[in-house]
Amino acid sequence: MTGTIDWIAADWGTTNLRLWAMSGRAPVEARTDPRGMGGLAPDDFAAVLAEATQGWPAVPVIACGMVGSRQGWSEAPYAAVPCPAQPRIVAVPGDPGGRPVRIVCGVKQTDPADVMRGEETQIAGLLAADPQFDGVICLPGTHTKWVRISAGEICNFKSVMTGEIFGLIAGHSVLRHSVGTDGCDLPTFLSAVSDAIARPERGYGGLFQIRAEGLLGELPAPVARARLSGTLIGWELAATKPWWLGSDITIIGASGLARLYAEALTAQGLAPRSVSVEDATLAGLNAAHDRFRSEG
Amino acid sequence: MTGTIDWIAADWGTTNLRLWAMSGRAPVEARTDPRGMGGLAPDDFAAVLAEATQGWPAVPVIACGMVGSRQGWSEAPYAAVPCPAQPRIVAVPGDPGGRPVRIVCGVKQTDPADVMRGEETQIAGLLAADPQFDGVICLPGTHTKWVRISAGEICNFKSVMTGEIFGLIAGHSVLRHSVGTDGCDLPTFLSAVSDAIARPERGYGGLFQIRAEGLLGELPAPVARARLSGTLIGWELAATKPWWLGSDITIIGASGLARLYAEALTAQGLAPRSVSVEDATLAGLNAAHDRFRSEG
Repeated sequence: MTGTIDWIAADWGTTNLRLWAMSGRAPVEARTDPRGMGGLAPDDFAAVLAEATQGWPAVPVIACGMVGSRQGWSEAPYAAVPCPAQPRIVAVPGDPGGRPVRIVCGVKQTDPADVMRGEETQIAGLLAADPQFDGVICLPGTHTKWVRISAGEICNFKSVMTGEIFGLIAGHSVLRHSVGTDGCDLPTFLSAVSDAIARPERGYGGLFQIRAEGLLGELPAPVARARLSGTLIGWELAATKPWWLGSDITIIGASGLARLYAEALTAQGLAPRSVSVEDATLAGLNAAHDRFRSEG
Repeated sequence: MTGTIDWIAADWGTTNLRLWAMSGRAPVEARTDPRGMGGLAPDDFAAVLAEATQGWPAVPVIACGMVGSRQGWSEAPYAAVPCPAQPRIVAVPGDPGGRPVRIVCGVKQTDPADVMRGEETQIAGLLAADPQFDGVICLPGTHTKWVRISAGEICNFKSVMTGEIFGLIAGHSVLRHSVGTDGCDLPTFLSAVSDAIARPERGYGGLFQIRAEGLLGELPAPVARARLSGTLIGWELAATKPWWLGSDITIIGASGLARLYAEALTAQGLAPRSVSVEDATLAGLNAAHDRFRSEG
């Protein structure tokens, strides 16, 4: 029967919870709840899930994200690279709410040490749609991930803290007076990216200048913001050059941040493809649901 | 009469207020008050000063720091470099509390844009003790300053946001779980400095790894903290190389941070001299008080 809710897809991150009531492979209703994993104790998750899914049937839940971390609901151990890009799942003990709950395992790398939780599901979604994908996936965010995929496997990956550092400097440092809360002048951004790739240390030495120029003269906020953002993304591209140089790049992201990465990579001569986070997440949770059904 | 309080020295920064009751050139009592300029409106300053100096006579006050900024008590216009290292002072209108109050002017630089408020007083103090000083002064702090002095003048200067960025990352990013609140393993620090000077982008790409190593294994907090601190100070030294390479460097600072700069510069083959912030500030406020008396 079309429209029957037969499972629930959940992306349960540090700062919020996204839920989709699923009928087969298609979402029939979406909800967002502010109760991210970061504010919850292990005993809170079952009740939050029950409240957040009120009115939906007690069908199986497949969740990805920080909900599976040690500080989350129930630890879903990391798979170690190299590993298949298909999702692995583990059960939350006791079928909370009278239905199976499964959490997608994160992925770890021992040397250099690195971890991801949530992005592996987006990667699985991309690979479900394009099983022959061979190249690098860039997932911009709080901790941007660069992930090398070959022969259906996650080969290795690297996390860079650009999103978090941008948020801290733009929102909490003295530059908050200069950079405003939105807007990004694209030519300024691209010039800052290019400078930071070529001479990363100059950009570092130039951060305070963004504030000083505003104090002593006029510096429009979207220009100031573009300089900060371009400097940080430029450092990231300098640090990840072996990942993107000459690679076939797909960016998973829908936000303005993903667009900035696309612009920056295009200016470096690449032709990145973009895929929406929501599409990739849902496709990945569908793949995890397939795994759940096949495991019985 | 020895011990008579005849003026008050004040270092009124963003986050706190330090006060010294002065007899001639010597402090007879010191106080610290948490009411920094950052939390005050222009109308609050007179009352805060009256409360904070309770029990002291209504003698002249000479203040330096952010109290003189546009958002402070009374704007003390910037002197523009090149300018004499001796302090310039302006009056707070109306003799608040029935006594003259003077604020030391900050210093600005147009190109590249830069500003200081407070450090100029420490510089004046250093120059008062050593009028022939010719070289570079490094003042580590929230916004570390590098200042070139020649022929008794501030020639030019550069601010780097290392202290503020360290505080944000160590206190508010995901690395806060890894770096602890104190301790710094010196060999790790020096190695991170050296790496960051040589390849700044690698250090940027390695920040998240500090967290991941702690998650996947063991990374003692003082080692993690040393890597973060060494990476940021290394970037700063890469950005300020033209300031310190082959220069006669004096560091004004008493904190652990100043010691780290001294260690980092020594490892680069320099022989930095260190002067305490309090000594330099008091000597600079004494020089400003001399100026006040000579101006009548």
